[in-house]
Amino acid sequence: MRVLLIGFGPVGRAFAGLIEERRAMLRARYGLDLELAAIASSSAAWLRDPRAGSPGADALRGAASPAELVGRIEPWNGADALDSVDADVLVEATSGGGDSGEPAAGHVRAALSRRMHVVAASKGAFVWHYRELRDLARRSNVELRIGAATGAALPTIDTARYGLAGAEIERIEGILNGTSNYILTRMREGGTYADALRDAQGRGVAEADPRTDVEGTDTATKLVLLANALFDAGLTLADVPTTGITQLAPDDLARAVERGERIRLLGTLEGGTGAWRARVEPVPLGADHPLARVDGLEKGITYQTDTMARVTVIGGRSDPNGAAGALLRDIVNLASG
Amino acid sequence: MRVLLIGFGPVGRAFAGLIEERRAMLRARYGLDLELAAIASSSAAWLRDPRAGSPGADALRGAASPAELVGRIEPWNGADALDSVDADVLVEATSGGGDSGEPAAGHVRAALSRRMHVVAASKGAFVWHYRELRDLARRSNVELRIGAATGAALPTIDTARYGLAGAEIERIEGILNGTSNYILTRMREGGTYADALRDAQGRGVAEADPRTDVEGTDTATKLVLLANALFDAGLTLADVPTTGITQLAPDDLARAVERGERIRLLGTLEGGTGAWRARVEPVPLGADHPLARVDGLEKGITYQTDTMARVTVIGGRSDPNGAAGALLRDIVNLASG
Repeated sequence: MRVLLIGFGPVGRAFAGLIEERRAMLRARYGLDLELAAIASSSAAWLRDPRAGSPGADALRGAASPAELVGRIEPWNGADALDSVDADVLVEATSGGGDSGEPAAGHVRAALSRRMHVVAASKGAFVWHYRELRDLARRSNVELRIGAATGAALPTIDTARYGLAGAEIERIEGILNGTSNYILTRMREGGTYADALRDAQGRGVAEADPRTDVEGTDTATKLVLLANALFDAGLTLADVPTTGITQLAPDDLARAVERGERIRLLGTLEGGTGAWRARVEPVPLGADHPLARVDGLEKGITYQTDTMARVTVIGGRSDPNGAAGALLRDIVNLASG
Repeated sequence: MRVLLIGFGPVGRAFAGLIEERRAMLRARYGLDLELAAIASSSAAWLRDPRAGSPGADALRGAASPAELVGRIEPWNGADALDSVDADVLVEATSGGGDSGEPAAGHVRAALSRRMHVVAASKGAFVWHYRELRDLARRSNVELRIGAATGAALPTIDTARYGLAGAEIERIEGILNGTSNYILTRMREGGTYADALRDAQGRGVAEADPRTDVEGTDTATKLVLLANALFDAGLTLADVPTTGITQLAPDDLARAVERGERIRLLGTLEGGTGAWRARVEPVPLGADHPLARVDGLEKGITYQTDTMARVTVIGGRSDPNGAAGALLRDIVNLASG
């Protein structure tokens, strides 16, 4: 199975290093011969040259550009690479894209049209074009997996798809954004939102512009992706009333603690087949709620089902290495299933 | 896909009712046409008679014996049914068996030899004969799934197999027995072990003879099944040093609470490839351990991995309906994969 990786930021580099160093393990455990065939950034592409040997996992993790790697180098972007590289699966790991979902959507469309599987860590393309892209994948008889975009190393889609197969999921609640959960944890220990945000920024946990995380957009995005991937709910961000944590005062958190509760930025999806409704808001959770104790950067998701009752998953590494592990997970599962 | 169900206790009856009422849902969602072809208890078998119509989910859930159902009735046991019924998958749900794993092991052997898939809720056969039965399944090119035996509706094997695919699992910790966790929760609220056990027995949460649960055997059994199914560890119960909760005093739990800890009957599996070691014992867990807050009848399992870090699953219905949901989950996953 030949992999074309598009996007060479922190996640792309971590993924490239990971699959390069796991080749023997993947072959032994899953009978899966996974070869990184090419990597494209926005301005340069690397192609494996068998005569030059492996670039090595450390070089893949450390390079600033594909052009620094040992192999064949071309002045291509992702679209060029899709035109020229013969691969079985596209790993879409471009960042940004914002409102349009580009260039990721274009990459995914091109790959699916060429009957390549697609495994994605980027979100925008699927917020805006999920149904179109899923239909295209079906027509091409290939797989489209976006588990790495909806919680990364926290197995959100996989738990629903495999762990709860055959059950009806009635409701989903999720702490899906580590940055805002970290800030809420700090605020509970004392301090204002501004203090906690500064602390998070100082630790590299929050970005200089933290709005996507603290205003709830990232949580709403993951909720839309989950709703569409699991239930074909056809939701967009406009369907998700979203309140972030920026207006919370230390008193709000202190009062919750007095009641034995914890305030969490919760994404909720409920309503069932044909009537899924999503919302994002700070919610006080009682001590017996399985997500009440998800502290700091951890994430968690709770599924309420009919036959299995309530199942909760917590954890998963919240960094580029965790996202790389999630991309590999999705490839292994599509290759095995 | 034609199903032969052997074992018509609470789990078997719940499973029979569940798949009878989910036929349309399974066809629509998974393209899976699942038909209950026959049910065998130790002394009577029911076979579907298309001319007699469906026995109905309520009748399947409520019957004391397969002989009470509308259809063809034979004086068969499980072995007879395996000789006579043409089916694609055996659902093994006999209870008991204890030290020998019989009659379940015989049923599983016969089914695999006939190239039937096997999905099991019973444990004994796999504690004693897992490797033999797995090898037989491989030679017959069919699937053997025991997820319903290792935590039922708590997705233990599925989380490892799918949610953590491609990662190295370094350590597993599990609260795998609801009865003993319920007793520990009661003891923490005050009261002796004997008081808490009586309370549990009064609520139907503990059996009259509670030894399998409170002495740790059930936890050790599930740990052995997990180790063998996930890692081919080749463990038996004799390899698992096991201490139960019967010797704990109220003071032990009170002192743990003072330290901010909770005592849990924990199954631990660690050591990695070729060196897996298992043990079961009461362990004080700090408040930041994700299993510390798993109270009452709930179960939970934590996987420590390399790429994904720590992932924990909590919950899942702890009753025959939950086990039935788990059997259906395993069938759906084997049919889809």
